[in-house]
Amino acid sequence: MENSKRYEAGMDVMKKLFSEEVRGGMAGMKEISPDFWEMIVSFGFGDTYSREALSLSQKEIITLTALITQGAFDQLKVHLEAALKIGLTKEEITEIIIHCSAYTGFPKAVQAMGIAGEVFNGT
Amino acid sequence: MENSKRYEAGMDVMKKLFSEEVRGGMAGMKEISPDFWEMIVSFGFGDTYSREALSLSQKEIITLTALITQGAFDQLKVHLEAALKIGLTKEEITEIIIHCSAYTGFPKAVQAMGIAGEVFNGT
Amino acid sequence: MENSKRYEAGMDVMKKLFSEEVRGGMAGMKEISPDFWEMIVSFGFGDTYSREALSLSQKEIITLTALITQGAFDQLKVHLEAALKIGLTKEEITEIIIHCSAYTGFPKAVQAMGIAGEVFNGT
Amino acid sequence: MENSKRYEAGMDVMKKLFSEEVRGGMAGMKEISPDFWEMIVSFGFGDTYSREALSLSQKEIITLTALITQGAFDQLKVHLEAALKIGLTKEEITEIIIHCSAYTGFPKAVQAMGIAGEVFNGT
Amino acid sequence: MENSKRYEAGMDVMKKLFSEEVRGGMAGMKEISPDFWEMIVSFGFGDTYSREALSLSQKEIITLTALITQGAFDQLKVHLEAALKIGLTKEEITEIIIHCSAYTGFPKAVQAMGIAGEVFNGT
Amino acid sequence: MENSKRYEAGMDVMKKLFSEEVRGGMAGMKEISPDFWEMIVSFGFGDTYSREALSLSQKEIITLTALITQGAFDQLKVHLEAALKIGLTKEEITEIIIHCSAYTGFPKAVQAMGIAGEVFNGT
Repeated sequence: MENSKRYEAGMDVMKKLFSEEVRGGMAGMKEISPDFWEMIVSFGFGDTYSREALSLSQKEIITLTALITQGAFDQLKVHLEAALKIGLTKEEITEIIIHCSAYTGFPKAVQAMGIAGEVFNGT
Repeated sequence: MENSKRYEAGMDVMKKLFSEEVRGGMAGMKEISPDFWEMIVSFGFGDTYSREALSLSQKEIITLTALITQGAFDQLKVHLEAALKIGLTKEEITEIIIHCSAYTGFPKAVQAMGIAGEVFNGT
Repeated sequence: MENSKRYEAGMDVMKKLFSEEVRGGMAGMKEISPDFWEMIVSFGFGDTYSREALSLSQKEIITLTALITQGAFDQLKVHLEAALKIGLTKEEITEIIIHCSAYTGFPKAVQAMGIAGEVFNGT
Repeated sequence: MENSKRYEAGMDVMKKLFSEEVRGGMAGMKEISPDFWEMIVSFGFGDTYSREALSLSQKEIITLTALITQGAFDQLKVHLEAALKIGLTKEEITEIIIHCSAYTGFPKAVQAMGIAGEVFNGT
Repeated sequence: MENSKRYEAGMDVMKKLFSEEVRGGMAGMKEISPDFWEMIVSFGFGDTYSREALSLSQKEIITLTALITQGAFDQLKVHLEAALKIGLTKEEITEIIIHCSAYTGFPKAVQAMGIAGEVFNGT
Repeated sequence: MENSKRYEAGMDVMKKLFSEEVRGGMAGMKEISPDFWEMIVSFGFGDTYSREALSLSQKEIITLTALITQGAFDQLKVHLEAALKIGLTKEEITEIIIHCSAYTGFPKAVQAMGIAGEVFNGT
């Protein structure tokens, strides 16, 4: 497929995952580096989330786990919101974090659960 | 529940995940530290995998992602085998690794895919 | 031992480590996920800190090192306070961080020492 | 640009970086997952190494540092060979590792220097 | 060389890298632990940055990459400023982060690019 | 103190920690990079292990924890042997690993316990 199709596919997926407000914030990246923004949309969302063998909620389970395991808590909030938006329940999200605790250790799981609590209260 | 129930629940789950041979190898831990073995079974499997809100395959998606993200390739092989045993397809597994690549970087995803290739060939 | 004993053992240890105020903050976790709170107390404190072969101060040395090495600075403050509460001196704590620097690199050690400075000044 | 151009750009860069033998080994990935192979070539090499603002040797400095810092020693050998192939000297490579030691800690730097020693002896 | 020379070498390099204000902030470490401050200056800057086989800008490329890869975003800002001060351009810095994305994954690269944007705007 | 004293202090500590055979293996680093070898001895051992506020066994507890937490299993074996040589018991070592499990997650603790088992059997 052509490159413009990858970008479009990424933008389509981002609409499913994120609110308009969140997408607006993300697009601020365009002003720092238009090329990096293009990569984020085309590769980071287009090439990955638009694939069809896994469901969007399976992909968000992977995303949440990868963010928690590497301690990328700065990005965790928007993906917790995305997880709720595409249909994962609060219970499923707390269970993901509980399962993580055995693999990542408690410090990361505790921090993740605290952020989940904030997201749930804002919902 | 009593502690012996936690241990039993862990052993039950391990039977679903691992072949007899793999479980025999794991039990070698009992001779190094019986207490640590008890924790692995009761907490690492009993308290986590026997919970009911997520399916076993959702839990293996979390486990595989957590192992790949932290570079725990030593444990990856048995969990790739477990993933196949409980019904994830080879295609789903390669898709998990592909989705990880955007979040963990290529070095870890490439190493994971190489190990998946070995597991698939041994199947 | 029964599960309720594990929880009690965890609560007992937490009283030795943390001030009432800190424990109150931690217990906020109960409202997000009662099951995760039970795991934190029973496994994260009961099964580990209540074991007897190592002293509480040896265990806090391990805890501080594990938090610094993984960059879990969010949890570091309360464990620096815990270390002081159970009898590690400020000098011993700065020496732990100095020894870490060779193993974790300077960025993590510098960040840890900065947080230690804040904790020492609040004491 | 079209996607086929990204793939070509990746293949061109891989020829500059790796020997025919190494590229042959890498291409084994194609049989495990053709789609992942396409991503490695098009994104992992095409979109990154074929950019022009940094020189190839600056990019290998980044690559070596990122691999050492995350402990991705499995991939380090081929990139140490690539670094020599594109013109970094043995002295520059040992200096990269020495500089890393302050930022990553000694365990990772020592392991990297050991692998560099093996690569230098094989040269 | 004598130890006092290592300290002097470190102080000289720090003048090249950091503004007077930043150096003043760093020296606050002296009050928490004078010995650790001495190590930071003598080893962390003297023994590493004053070596001659790599240029200062090559060393900052290594430093930025090591910080991004380990998620040490607390230290990233001053080293982004240092990179600009010793002559790396904004374009080169965004390219370093873009190249990192394939090796560290997008979460760390995105966070780094956001901080770079703040530093660029403050320049 | 003069630099030669730092090197001597490092060599003295290494004699306390490692067998002649292990030290011989480590010294192979001298041929790859004499300067890096000097840093390892003078900073990595001299500046850290020869400090007096913590005991050698407290320092090995820190070292083992830092290695396990970052997954530096390549260096773990010699430091497990060092821990035994300076007087930590097998029981204390297994307890260190058990305590780590809550902070680092089970994959790293399991791998560490396996290596400890090998070291104990070789003793």
